[in-house]
Amino acid sequence: MGKVTGLRCVSCGRVYPKDSKYFTCPSCGNTNGTLSVLYDYDHLHKTLNRDNWIDFSIPSHFRYINLLPFEDRTLIPVLQTGMTPIYRAHTLEKKYGQRELYIKDDSRNPTGSYKDRASSIALVKATEEGQKAIVVASTGNAASSMAGFAASADLPLYVLVPERIPEAKLAQLVAYNAKVIKIRGTYDMAFELSLKLAESEGFYLRSTAVNPYLSEGKKTGAFEIAEQLNYNLPDYVFVPVGDGCIIESVYKGFVEMKEIGITTKIPMLVGVQAKGASPLVHAFENGREHFTPVENPYTIADSISVGFPRDGVKALKAVKNSHGMFLSVEDMEIQQAISELGSNTGVFAEPAAATAFAGYKKAILSNKIDRNASVLIMITGSGLKDIQAVMQAINPHVPLCDPSIESIKDGMVFYKKME
Amino acid sequence: MGKVTGLRCVSCGRVYPKDSKYFTCPSCGNTNGTLSVLYDYDHLHKTLNRDNWIDFSIPSHFRYINLLPFEDRTLIPVLQTGMTPIYRAHTLEKKYGQRELYIKDDSRNPTGSYKDRASSIALVKATEEGQKAIVVASTGNAASSMAGFAASADLPLYVLVPERIPEAKLAQLVAYNAKVIKIRGTYDMAFELSLKLAESEGFYLRSTAVNPYLSEGKKTGAFEIAEQLNYNLPDYVFVPVGDGCIIESVYKGFVEMKEIGITTKIPMLVGVQAKGASPLVHAFENGREHFTPVENPYTIADSISVGFPRDGVKALKAVKNSHGMFLSVEDMEIQQAISELGSNTGVFAEPAAATAFAGYKKAILSNKIDRNASVLIMITGSGLKDIQAVMQAINPHVPLCDPSIESIKDGMVFYKKME
Repeated sequence: MGKVTGLRCVSCGRVYPKDSKYFTCPSCGNTNGTLSVLYDYDHLHKTLNRDNWIDFSIPSHFRYINLLPFEDRTLIPVLQTGMTPIYRAHTLEKKYGQRELYIKDDSRNPTGSYKDRASSIALVKATEEGQKAIVVASTGNAASSMAGFAASADLPLYVLVPERIPEAKLAQLVAYNAKVIKIRGTYDMAFELSLKLAESEGFYLRSTAVNPYLSEGKKTGAFEIAEQLNYNLPDYVFVPVGDGCIIESVYKGFVEMKEIGITTKIPMLVGVQAKGASPLVHAFENGREHFTPVENPYTIADSISVGFPRDGVKALKAVKNSHGMFLSVEDMEIQQAISELGSNTGVFAEPAAATAFAGYKKAILSNKIDRNASVLIMITGSGLKDIQAVMQAINPHVPLCDPSIESIKDGMVFYKKME
Repeated sequence: MGKVTGLRCVSCGRVYPKDSKYFTCPSCGNTNGTLSVLYDYDHLHKTLNRDNWIDFSIPSHFRYINLLPFEDRTLIPVLQTGMTPIYRAHTLEKKYGQRELYIKDDSRNPTGSYKDRASSIALVKATEEGQKAIVVASTGNAASSMAGFAASADLPLYVLVPERIPEAKLAQLVAYNAKVIKIRGTYDMAFELSLKLAESEGFYLRSTAVNPYLSEGKKTGAFEIAEQLNYNLPDYVFVPVGDGCIIESVYKGFVEMKEIGITTKIPMLVGVQAKGASPLVHAFENGREHFTPVENPYTIADSISVGFPRDGVKALKAVKNSHGMFLSVEDMEIQQAISELGSNTGVFAEPAAATAFAGYKKAILSNKIDRNASVLIMITGSGLKDIQAVMQAINPHVPLCDPSIESIKDGMVFYKKME
């Protein structure tokens, strides 16, 4: 029921058979020719409703198997992915006068990021296709996420990274025993080489934009928002944007639910980029459908430090079609957002994830969104992934006291003054 | 139904009224006189069964509210705690010839550690008692965990830490806006000062051993094992041991389920300490009920680098009564366990958590446990909490290649040689 019927190019609209070996549309190329997975929506509309579209017995995002690109349930990975909590942020609602403000904490995934949604599907597809190994080019969460899933299935994973990867980022990869190879060059070179390696060695390719199935994993965030909020969809959903894959996938999720008659509304999607890496914000502000890459992207939010968004075209389209917008925020605003979010909600976000909250603040304070609206902010990764960023951000001054109650009470004055 | 009837001293057995202001038995003192929370087990036995002892509508460990020390459901914290996944570790089963081997991944809690179970209850009790602030002495997970929960409820938290706390450990605390005060002295001094500060300022005290309710949060790990494994309890449960509170609490959970007639068996509990901080192993091996503190505890597993286990007496009793054992492992074995666990299961554990797996390896390889038994290993904290330990442990050698397929294939040979 409801399985893949074909792959459609997001630029020219041409539909390719689902067994096609092309990962991108040969006419439109890698940048513009990303493919989108199609299902038999008419059939799904006829057969599914709110009571039967979810397999409630599955405690992970695979409960949405009716809209996922595989049939065999024995392929569902061991690591329990998705179904991350949504919290209502009462303190922040009061602070900003927002009617309803929700935080979806995707740092609660198996390896601590939203990327686990994509990796879990990649593992399913790689196993289904009988692939002997997986390859990914990444400097961050996509690689560590895939490494966790590959380890859980005892499947080798090759990770191509630029030479200058921070040592700390290697830790999670190495703990999962990923086969890391440093490249004398840039991330873009590593990316191109991952395509070649997949082809020459017959490895499964887990790289965004060129693999249409990753999006299928990432769209489940939208499904969960609907299910968990009892189909009262928020008016706005804020998402941090690097390559653009998450926001486009979340959009696809909302569209699919509407197409099969589960919901009637598409939330307005707000894509937030860091100022130093905001090609999509520029394109959006100038009403363009294509973006101009940023030569030397820079932001402390390394997960979204992307100058050439691989899914940029899809992302621009998604935001426009949802009647949403793109915003950029300064690094200082991102840093401040980490502690404001943490201290008001108990959710500790990595810089990229806090970027979505920084974008919300900017939008509400500049009246770009309505106080009477309901808003959901997607937290896409754990603050534990980048402790250094927090330390730089906050540069904590901590009182040092003698071991006596009197001295401690003096120390407490330090905090009382800050209130 | 089934609420607290009193507090019993674990040493002399004297029962104090539940409203007693004593946090420890005044006759037996802080070290030996820890109190244990009692319920009306006879009544619970008569009224509860497997179909009604859990409130299945609650998606967190508060589903066991019938055996938790409060009544008012509006006090349940926002952050979704517990109900962490249990994975069957097929690859490791094959490797060690174990009939059944399970991993319970408690790194999936809101702040990344088992301590969230205790902090969530501490928040309930502090709110119930109308306390205006919380205080904790801790160098690690207990503090960052309490900080997350306090932030989620907008309640001030004072954290007393020894002067030499690693900067990285401050990050999570600071992101949650905890009021950290460094003490010129040791952890023991900070601990004693936290008791005094709680008394002089009327703060709620979240320090293990002296607060009997923390144990009530930590016992839910046992309840989940029963529920999630459909009441087929494992023969052995491996738990890392520092202060001893977790293993004692898990034991209490198993005992309570048996007392109310939900289960019939108590798993054998295996407490694993790091060699350089193993006072309970020494006491156990010498058949003693009390331990001799270790003067200068040292291990890379900082969460269990404890020379004076505050819950040591309770922990020794629990392990003995369960017919289990204590084991110690070397730091090198802990380091190796991190990557063996990560690369075989996809679960990335902090050093203290990996200690439990290292203990399992030691036990199975020295025939201290039966290959035909079923075993569960409790992973108590996320590897992301201590990236440095992993880097030290693994010291990764990563091949560096030119940006060409040929060069990458040379790099791949490096990994093929390791297989």
